[in-house]
Amino acid sequence: MAQFINAKENLVTEYIDGFLRASGGSRLARLDGYPNIKVVIRSDHQPSRVAVISGGGSGHEPAHAGLVGKGMLTAAVCGEVFASPSVDAVLAAIMAVTGNAGCVLIVKNYTGDRLNFGLAAERARALGKKVEVVVVGDDIAHPGLPQPRGVAGTLFVHKITGYLAERGASLASVAGTARKVAKATVSIGMSLTSCTLPGIGREDRVPLGKAELGLGIHGEPGVHLVDFAGAHGAAQMLSKMLFERVGRAARYALLLNNLGATTALEMGVLANELLTGPFGRKIKLIVGPAALMTSLDMHGVSVSLLPLTRDFERALTADVAPHAWPGARRPEKPATRKLPREIAVRAMKPSRNAALKEMTERACDILIASESALNRLDAKTGDGDTGSTIAGAARNLKAQLNRMPLADPGSFFGAVSGTLNQTMGGSSGVLLAILFAAAGRAAGEGKNWTLSLQAGLRRMMEYGGARPGDRTMIDALEPAIAELVAGNSIAAAARAARAGADATARMQQARAGRSAYVAAANLAGIPDPGAEAVASLFEGLNGQGPDR
Amino acid sequence: MAQFINAKENLVTEYIDGFLRASGGSRLARLDGYPNIKVVIRSDHQPSRVAVISGGGSGHEPAHAGLVGKGMLTAAVCGEVFASPSVDAVLAAIMAVTGNAGCVLIVKNYTGDRLNFGLAAERARALGKKVEVVVVGDDIAHPGLPQPRGVAGTLFVHKITGYLAERGASLASVAGTARKVAKATVSIGMSLTSCTLPGIGREDRVPLGKAELGLGIHGEPGVHLVDFAGAHGAAQMLSKMLFERVGRAARYALLLNNLGATTALEMGVLANELLTGPFGRKIKLIVGPAALMTSLDMHGVSVSLLPLTRDFERALTADVAPHAWPGARRPEKPATRKLPREIAVRAMKPSRNAALKEMTERACDILIASESALNRLDAKTGDGDTGSTIAGAARNLKAQLNRMPLADPGSFFGAVSGTLNQTMGGSSGVLLAILFAAAGRAAGEGKNWTLSLQAGLRRMMEYGGARPGDRTMIDALEPAIAELVAGNSIAAAARAARAGADATARMQQARAGRSAYVAAANLAGIPDPGAEAVASLFEGLNGQGPDR
Repeated sequence: MAQFINAKENLVTEYIDGFLRASGGSRLARLDGYPNIKVVIRSDHQPSRVAVISGGGSGHEPAHAGLVGKGMLTAAVCGEVFASPSVDAVLAAIMAVTGNAGCVLIVKNYTGDRLNFGLAAERARALGKKVEVVVVGDDIAHPGLPQPRGVAGTLFVHKITGYLAERGASLASVAGTARKVAKATVSIGMSLTSCTLPGIGREDRVPLGKAELGLGIHGEPGVHLVDFAGAHGAAQMLSKMLFERVGRAARYALLLNNLGATTALEMGVLANELLTGPFGRKIKLIVGPAALMTSLDMHGVSVSLLPLTRDFERALTADVAPHAWPGARRPEKPATRKLPREIAVRAMKPSRNAALKEMTERACDILIASESALNRLDAKTGDGDTGSTIAGAARNLKAQLNRMPLADPGSFFGAVSGTLNQTMGGSSGVLLAILFAAAGRAAGEGKNWTLSLQAGLRRMMEYGGARPGDRTMIDALEPAIAELVAGNSIAAAARAARAGADATARMQQARAGRSAYVAAANLAGIPDPGAEAVASLFEGLNGQGPDR
Repeated sequence: MAQFINAKENLVTEYIDGFLRASGGSRLARLDGYPNIKVVIRSDHQPSRVAVISGGGSGHEPAHAGLVGKGMLTAAVCGEVFASPSVDAVLAAIMAVTGNAGCVLIVKNYTGDRLNFGLAAERARALGKKVEVVVVGDDIAHPGLPQPRGVAGTLFVHKITGYLAERGASLASVAGTARKVAKATVSIGMSLTSCTLPGIGREDRVPLGKAELGLGIHGEPGVHLVDFAGAHGAAQMLSKMLFERVGRAARYALLLNNLGATTALEMGVLANELLTGPFGRKIKLIVGPAALMTSLDMHGVSVSLLPLTRDFERALTADVAPHAWPGARRPEKPATRKLPREIAVRAMKPSRNAALKEMTERACDILIASESALNRLDAKTGDGDTGSTIAGAARNLKAQLNRMPLADPGSFFGAVSGTLNQTMGGSSGVLLAILFAAAGRAAGEGKNWTLSLQAGLRRMMEYGGARPGDRTMIDALEPAIAELVAGNSIAAAARAARAGADATARMQQARAGRSAYVAAANLAGIPDPGAEAVASLFEGLNGQGPDR
């Protein structure tokens, strides 16, 4: 399983250095203790304030290095991937940032973390530091276990503790509140895959149609393997479990955590389900969806819940420096705006112009008559439907002629654009619709019809990106219109279109359009069907038969 | 391939609604045109300012809905996954947000986007709106192609355009600058997997040891399949390609984009490589690493480069409302702080205490003598190394006794803690180190040695989480120390320890420690090796032999 890493041994130190380099101006630093001591600290911490220190194994980014900064962590102690940092590393962090106000260690409830942070706390106390340890065990996956794991709900503790510390609260007050938050928070995770361990790989253990429920953040298997019933079912299951376990409150904060590789689309759908589900009204604040406490590239999510007090709410919604914190927002029903009235299809006001009607009908008939020939041509280099596509649009245009504003060229071109856009699929339909829309606008501005068509052609080339010589319908259309603009006859235009269409047969490589993907050898000697259609149209309007 | 979605048909609308619900207070709204018209707009846009509209197929989140807000996009037009939005959707967005100042459409260079946005622009112009279209084709994957794709470098255009519009620049100025940025930006992507199409799955097409270079953001295969040589090689290859193609400048902005499922660890390592590599010094600003223009859950990255002017720099570094924009930062060498001096191992000042030395040596000898018996016991429920672990620590402690501060109980306990932590692996070593560290601190505060040990035991229980009855060494240690604290004899302590150790054999389920993972049936009748070690120790100190 390839990954964008170098030696596994340097993975965490290289990550930290990259993170710090790319965080220029964020007032962060690290202790000079590589490789054993990997500690990121705020460089703007005031020792008169309680320091907030957290950490644990790496692989949970942005936790914890990404959470260091004003209003959140004072220091993050990073272990190797999924391995607790050493006592020395934690002690180094404590001694580096703890002033007279003391510090709070926020520790996720894993034996290794608890022990290493615990011993470091003992040592720091022996060295005269005031240290409080707060252990977070928010996971409700094992209902009977007296020692639940610490998972993403730890972010609630980080945020609220960081807020109080920043405001200058005492150590006792900060630690007391942190313990309250830790105790009140509940979390549960669900995943569809395990995670990829650097240098090792991924264990494919979740069968299709199943999901792991109650998984850990270190690749530990879920406690239950459940049937997976999409986002709706997942959101219902997770929120029901949480609301059955959480303490009663009038309102809650919900944290929706991406465990790694879940797409933003999925996270948005889950947010929608959670906020509109049976417990949705109880959610007063939502944090995320965001990747906060990940498990490498696990395709999964976790949901955490905290009963809110006014104090917690104030602490959660305060601004912080770390960009990884997505904010805590009050869920809102999506505000909607009425569609602009121009979008509603408006009835055209029909008007008459016998000459225009007659010529358009002739043009449509010519294109309808070309259907089979163009399909046969297209089959040699494409999927054989050019003739049918064009004929279908022509039939539709002919059928609508009586309802069109024929008396005004600008409106007429606009109406042609509308029918083409509705009935002619693929890029060609949109391209011709662009041509006629722009031609309609030019005509509306007073240009004559040939100049208007030329203006439309220019727009079409601009949007389509094709130029003469690129083996498209433009190779016939552009010279034909140029003849008309120069005041020459339909016959001259037809000759020009024919020369252009024939030339496409000698163009070895298409530079635009679908033929760009066809090998040159397959194109040799075959004219482009679009250009051929244009040539046939002009020849037909000039009285020449379709059967050359 | 399971995903956290419901019906594929509602994926994008459910995502948008979830995104909006979770973005409460962000002054966003959507047009009421589901399912065909999926447009997210700023509700605080002032029509006197140029509107900045972008969009395209979905699956690139946070682009584009996540980029709507003050200082960036005025509206995002969202198509289905990897499919251009319709002309009507784009027109609706234009008509909804465009005032007298006009609007700029930022379009990634794909035929579908170019055509649908183009025709919508034509229609809006016909309706009297001033519309400028800026097409972005920053991808340098196909060196010869006249129509490069638009990829993540489009974010540079969004940001700079949004900044100018927010400051009230004229339409001509905004569009002119947008075109300059679009023309100057170059991007290239590399991936190790394809992406998972909702409801379809993932094509596993990248062989192990290879990477796709020059891939698109819609699952299009890379232009080249290259040997993958880790983060260092990848960063070198990508930056070399970009710097060979980009215009000459004194300094550049670099955007490091996560295409979806790349871990934060990998992104940090890549940032480190790019910023310390041969072109690193030319990078004046870095945007990311962040997921900005993703390709669902693709495990890959793209790098974009923009030659900087002072104006571009000012625009890129300005604050914006959308949280998805990670800021543009000036790369910095990581600031380091010296390790606190307490971390350096300090030489102990040896001192003498014959009685303590003699008793400690006896204790060590007893534990060393128990090695085989404890190993045999441990083998029945664990991995058979408890005896060796304890004996090894005892041997080391005995060897260091002459260098220890024996005259002062507080320092002595602290020194014991230090040697245990260094030499005794596993949780037990850290737990005993915690016990002795806390005991040392209690002794230093004037407590006698039995009370100090009891204080240490309490700390150990706090951090380890085990209580009497949990089938650990505490079941022997706690009653033995209680006897000593009560002023009773070593003999009484030994009896209490033995009773506690024997009781562990009847405890059917371990609640803490490694045995918690062993089935009850396998534990029946076997005492816990740690508790047995404690009982043996006290019995030995009481003059009883090890061979009961």
